[in-house]
Amino acid sequence: MGSTYGKILNISIFGESHGPAVGVTIDNFPCGIEVDMDFIMQEMSRRAPSDAPSSTSRREKDIPQIVSGVKNGVTTGAPITILIENTNAKSGDYSPFATTPRPGHADFTANVRYSGHHDPNGGGHFSGRLTAPIVFAGALCKLALKRDNIKIGAHLLQVGDMFDDQFTQSILNESLLDELRTKNAPIINPLAETAIDKLVRDTAAKGDSIGGVVECAVLNAPAGLGSPIFDAVESRLSSFLFSIPAVRGVEFGAGFGVAFMSGSENNDEFYMDEGKIRTKTNNHGGALGGITTGMPILFRTAFKPTPSIFKTQNTVDLVQRCDATVTINGRHDPCIAFRAVPVCEAAAAIVLLDLYLEAYGYEKFR
Amino acid sequence: MGSTYGKILNISIFGESHGPAVGVTIDNFPCGIEVDMDFIMQEMSRRAPSDAPSSTSRREKDIPQIVSGVKNGVTTGAPITILIENTNAKSGDYSPFATTPRPGHADFTANVRYSGHHDPNGGGHFSGRLTAPIVFAGALCKLALKRDNIKIGAHLLQVGDMFDDQFTQSILNESLLDELRTKNAPIINPLAETAIDKLVRDTAAKGDSIGGVVECAVLNAPAGLGSPIFDAVESRLSSFLFSIPAVRGVEFGAGFGVAFMSGSENNDEFYMDEGKIRTKTNNHGGALGGITTGMPILFRTAFKPTPSIFKTQNTVDLVQRCDATVTINGRHDPCIAFRAVPVCEAAAAIVLLDLYLEAYGYEKFR
Amino acid sequence: MGSTYGKILNISIFGESHGPAVGVTIDNFPCGIEVDMDFIMQEMSRRAPSDAPSSTSRREKDIPQIVSGVKNGVTTGAPITILIENTNAKSGDYSPFATTPRPGHADFTANVRYSGHHDPNGGGHFSGRLTAPIVFAGALCKLALKRDNIKIGAHLLQVGDMFDDQFTQSILNESLLDELRTKNAPIINPLAETAIDKLVRDTAAKGDSIGGVVECAVLNAPAGLGSPIFDAVESRLSSFLFSIPAVRGVEFGAGFGVAFMSGSENNDEFYMDEGKIRTKTNNHGGALGGITTGMPILFRTAFKPTPSIFKTQNTVDLVQRCDATVTINGRHDPCIAFRAVPVCEAAAAIVLLDLYLEAYGYEKFR
Amino acid sequence: MGSTYGKILNISIFGESHGPAVGVTIDNFPCGIEVDMDFIMQEMSRRAPSDAPSSTSRREKDIPQIVSGVKNGVTTGAPITILIENTNAKSGDYSPFATTPRPGHADFTANVRYSGHHDPNGGGHFSGRLTAPIVFAGALCKLALKRDNIKIGAHLLQVGDMFDDQFTQSILNESLLDELRTKNAPIINPLAETAIDKLVRDTAAKGDSIGGVVECAVLNAPAGLGSPIFDAVESRLSSFLFSIPAVRGVEFGAGFGVAFMSGSENNDEFYMDEGKIRTKTNNHGGALGGITTGMPILFRTAFKPTPSIFKTQNTVDLVQRCDATVTINGRHDPCIAFRAVPVCEAAAAIVLLDLYLEAYGYEKFR
Repeated sequence: MGSTYGKILNISIFGESHGPAVGVTIDNFPCGIEVDMDFIMQEMSRRAPSDAPSSTSRREKDIPQIVSGVKNGVTTGAPITILIENTNAKSGDYSPFATTPRPGHADFTANVRYSGHHDPNGGGHFSGRLTAPIVFAGALCKLALKRDNIKIGAHLLQVGDMFDDQFTQSILNESLLDELRTKNAPIINPLAETAIDKLVRDTAAKGDSIGGVVECAVLNAPAGLGSPIFDAVESRLSSFLFSIPAVRGVEFGAGFGVAFMSGSENNDEFYMDEGKIRTKTNNHGGALGGITTGMPILFRTAFKPTPSIFKTQNTVDLVQRCDATVTINGRHDPCIAFRAVPVCEAAAAIVLLDLYLEAYGYEKFR
Repeated sequence: MGSTYGKILNISIFGESHGPAVGVTIDNFPCGIEVDMDFIMQEMSRRAPSDAPSSTSRREKDIPQIVSGVKNGVTTGAPITILIENTNAKSGDYSPFATTPRPGHADFTANVRYSGHHDPNGGGHFSGRLTAPIVFAGALCKLALKRDNIKIGAHLLQVGDMFDDQFTQSILNESLLDELRTKNAPIINPLAETAIDKLVRDTAAKGDSIGGVVECAVLNAPAGLGSPIFDAVESRLSSFLFSIPAVRGVEFGAGFGVAFMSGSENNDEFYMDEGKIRTKTNNHGGALGGITTGMPILFRTAFKPTPSIFKTQNTVDLVQRCDATVTINGRHDPCIAFRAVPVCEAAAAIVLLDLYLEAYGYEKFR
Repeated sequence: MGSTYGKILNISIFGESHGPAVGVTIDNFPCGIEVDMDFIMQEMSRRAPSDAPSSTSRREKDIPQIVSGVKNGVTTGAPITILIENTNAKSGDYSPFATTPRPGHADFTANVRYSGHHDPNGGGHFSGRLTAPIVFAGALCKLALKRDNIKIGAHLLQVGDMFDDQFTQSILNESLLDELRTKNAPIINPLAETAIDKLVRDTAAKGDSIGGVVECAVLNAPAGLGSPIFDAVESRLSSFLFSIPAVRGVEFGAGFGVAFMSGSENNDEFYMDEGKIRTKTNNHGGALGGITTGMPILFRTAFKPTPSIFKTQNTVDLVQRCDATVTINGRHDPCIAFRAVPVCEAAAAIVLLDLYLEAYGYEKFR
Repeated sequence: MGSTYGKILNISIFGESHGPAVGVTIDNFPCGIEVDMDFIMQEMSRRAPSDAPSSTSRREKDIPQIVSGVKNGVTTGAPITILIENTNAKSGDYSPFATTPRPGHADFTANVRYSGHHDPNGGGHFSGRLTAPIVFAGALCKLALKRDNIKIGAHLLQVGDMFDDQFTQSILNESLLDELRTKNAPIINPLAETAIDKLVRDTAAKGDSIGGVVECAVLNAPAGLGSPIFDAVESRLSSFLFSIPAVRGVEFGAGFGVAFMSGSENNDEFYMDEGKIRTKTNNHGGALGGITTGMPILFRTAFKPTPSIFKTQNTVDLVQRCDATVTINGRHDPCIAFRAVPVCEAAAAIVLLDLYLEAYGYEKFR
């Protein structure tokens, strides 16, 4: 299922970067959900390229055209398909990459996997542009989850060696997530925002790029979602997150930090909080035994620096079977982690709704 | 599919820690593979508890009994089912945990998810004992992959703040992996081995536990396995890895380190190496665009410290709905990352064979 | 997923006819269901060989041994695995069939598919004996569905040119299904029972076999189960039914009879029946647009005559690549449709519970 | 996966009858297949409404617009998405059916399943119009299968009590299938064609409709496709066929006829035919033990009469909860089995390619 995700809720992504359109089909989405286009367009614009220094200069309007599954602004229960036109695609620049693959890009593996039949322009089906339909699907899922007050938000935790404040239990709440959605840059600490902005500008000025980490939280998910072993919440989420281009790491709660910790440090003790069972710390990141605890689901996703840099790089010539060089022109995001923030949220929303439907069934939405 | 994994190759795990047996059914496994029981028993014993300080004192013989799918020592193509008897289960100790859940364990979420009907003894179906059948399945998959010279190995990269040498390109080769399989502790650097041994002993002496990181490599996998987006090699692998109890993080290649790197540092340049296309560095960890490059598939998995520690901990009473305490007796692994080394290898073997069967079909094994 | 079925509820069958055991793993089965072993053993014995003329002389006790998933007689939510030992397997008779395949059996295709590595004894994994674990799984599912009063029953509608009464709306009700379960032969009309008994005896006396049709009904299934197109109730059910050895046809409601009918004859008009919406006739067989209507789900399954007959038959020699003959000894069911009756019910129970879980979620069973 | 089909090859259908478009995404389709648009348009036009008496007067051009997955007329390996615009939709006529459901249609079950949120116009997502994208997908799969000389064809075997000649072994060959594709009506025997034409005209004149049976054959499929039990060729095919609107029965080879037969009549004896293993008769319909034998795969599918008839029918009022009547206007196919002929072929092509990819892998197409 190369481009198809999910157990009950099925998400099928299609399109190439420089083809007529990219899009998504969302199958088994609950009926009766109001399609709040203002909210959806806000989500789309959070991912879309902007004037910010962190962004590519390619600008797309990213307006989803609804083909099916919505009637009078409400979901019908039939598959929802949308198209997002590619209005700003310039294909001329990519032909050399079919034979001299760019380091860090999928040019080489696409060539092997599809024997050269793939569309190399703009990365084709491997392009980060395919995250636009993912954000659309995520926005819809957020609208469905909102019925039960489940809320999802994220911020840019790290760029290079600059760090934002972490989603610690003392600051993580709904209003912080609301605030982050409306900020210019999804960063909590203004000092971090300034430092990161400077780092990205400096990197861009050098024609280079820089990696980053997105931290995401799901609030108010009920305890009891997910299953042990292969249907663990973390398995489902990580599977989706590693499908996002450029992701190299995923961790939950204390994440890789657990390697440094003792059991007495890492264990989250339970306590009663006004009739609800909670943990004081959240090193477990909201799931034990693959099942949600009711605490915030907390995860971090590492994004590599954009492989498109303005420096002649060594590569091979796939036709001549010899060493070669390749040079990339045009402007690209110096730090894709910025625009990945709403994509991580979308992944969480899609996975959560899928798990939610398994727990409660489609009858819950009748 | 709580306990069922895979697209073509289907792995279905069953059993509870203190029930009569744990086991696995492996469906769509290729026919005609010789079931080398010596090799399989070696793999099983690498995961089994031992006299080492890092291990629990619970000792099981872990002898897989074959129920189906093997004739005259060769796989028939029918589902392979094996049982591993639980010979050393003492159930008396776990009853309090059904009502006063242990911090860091699945007692609480199992209670919510299964309304108290689950078997709490020894962790029931959530027990690390379920990794025994996973190691069996992985051993079988290794035997199938060996036909094409695909080799998988792992070591303990980190325990607490002690680190082994990394799988850098200069040292990573088949003989290193062979050597690691036969070592007492799967650690490359003797100094690291000594330091880790001391750390684990000290931790155990305090009745505490400690986390760790396993680093795993797949050598000689052909380029072209996997698919973009949701069938990315990394998606498949991470999905399996997060199903292993205690895993909190998974990363590929440079992993979370990419956040600190610039594109010019992180990009792996291609070159021709005696007619083969390779990269000089392996920050990408063997996959670009979700598809294998032919370079080693390299990933690290973070294991939390065993939540069983000898200290009275705060928890809640699920019946009385009030704060309570819980104390754990018996002996447990002070560092489960040790025994997780062959489990990570098994995960890689199962996922690789599944991807391999999708690429080449079952006809390849006729 | 050769031997794995289901979307939410996963059924994985294993074992060979003459291996140590056959069995099944049932994953994602609801927790908290009482495992009524008396009921289950009744179901098992309905499928087991008997002294009836329709039955093989191979006698198995067919006692399911529970390996996992049940605690104190109640399902825990963990995968349920059972084994049924093969106590009466004589393997000597089947070796010639590996090279001179029996007409109508799977000897030839098994040989091609598994390059001769399959176990030919007693049909190996292709044996009708694999329906024993299916009947066990079906019995468990019936126990879960009983909570909502969903009831499943079947009878032998046809053997050769002898017909039982059909499940018309005027006679189809719960007490008829109850009665059929306890009858010696699952046939409504005593005259049909006598005629069929004679036909089967005569056929057996000639060393031949005879085909038949099983008619099955599901009562009290709620309206709204299933989904349009590929998740139609009929798609799910037929997929399972054609997995039962010897099935050559499946039809719902008026079935193939619709080809003779006009729309004005075939359309089932709706009416109000004490506040419930029903149809006067049930040509649609309980599903419209792939979704249940609340009327009885009604389907018929055609079983071919046992291919094992006592007559030398023409075949080929797979080694010599030339024409050959083959002779089958031993005693076999002259009419497998008899023992297929509870298997069809089991298929319906498993598929219905899978659809039911999708509609209502596992939370329904908490 | 309501509208998503397949294990390796994934087909996802979307659209409503009177929405902007219907369409399909075909994921994991092999790369490098030439998209012969002439062939595809022929297939589309075989399904499209025509001037024939058997057809509705609704006329659509049914021109597939390619959104993704094709470059320079060749498949790229990325998901192929096409749209077919709905140019001739008149929505005004269907509003009463939302509250007074038409007998035999999905109006009632759609209402229950989607709480009235579904689009009732033209049947919405339940419309036979959704078979247009299925025929497109099938045409593409035929082009891929043609590489190995696999050929698929079908004819109208029965309408009411009029029968065409059967696909007996003596007449079934590639040239017959070629001939049937180009005929005005897909009927072998000219006398049957005349009789069926008259029957359909008479039925239409009465404002009524009539059922039918389509018989389909797959030639040259290699032996060894499919797997025992749940991945049987017949399971896969029947699952797809029952997803086509109006299907009430599916049978393979001798089908329901096996109930009348003895083993000695039904068994197909093997023989050597110029070095190939074949059977003299084909009662098994091309599959034994769920696996192809290399003989023609032969199946029949029963289509109910179009439920749209010009007669006031009894129904219920879903709002008032009382008995009511409903009258249908406009013109509809008096016998949908006609246009179902290419749809059955498409189903066979899609399922076969899915099984073929499992057997040989995507590497086969490199």
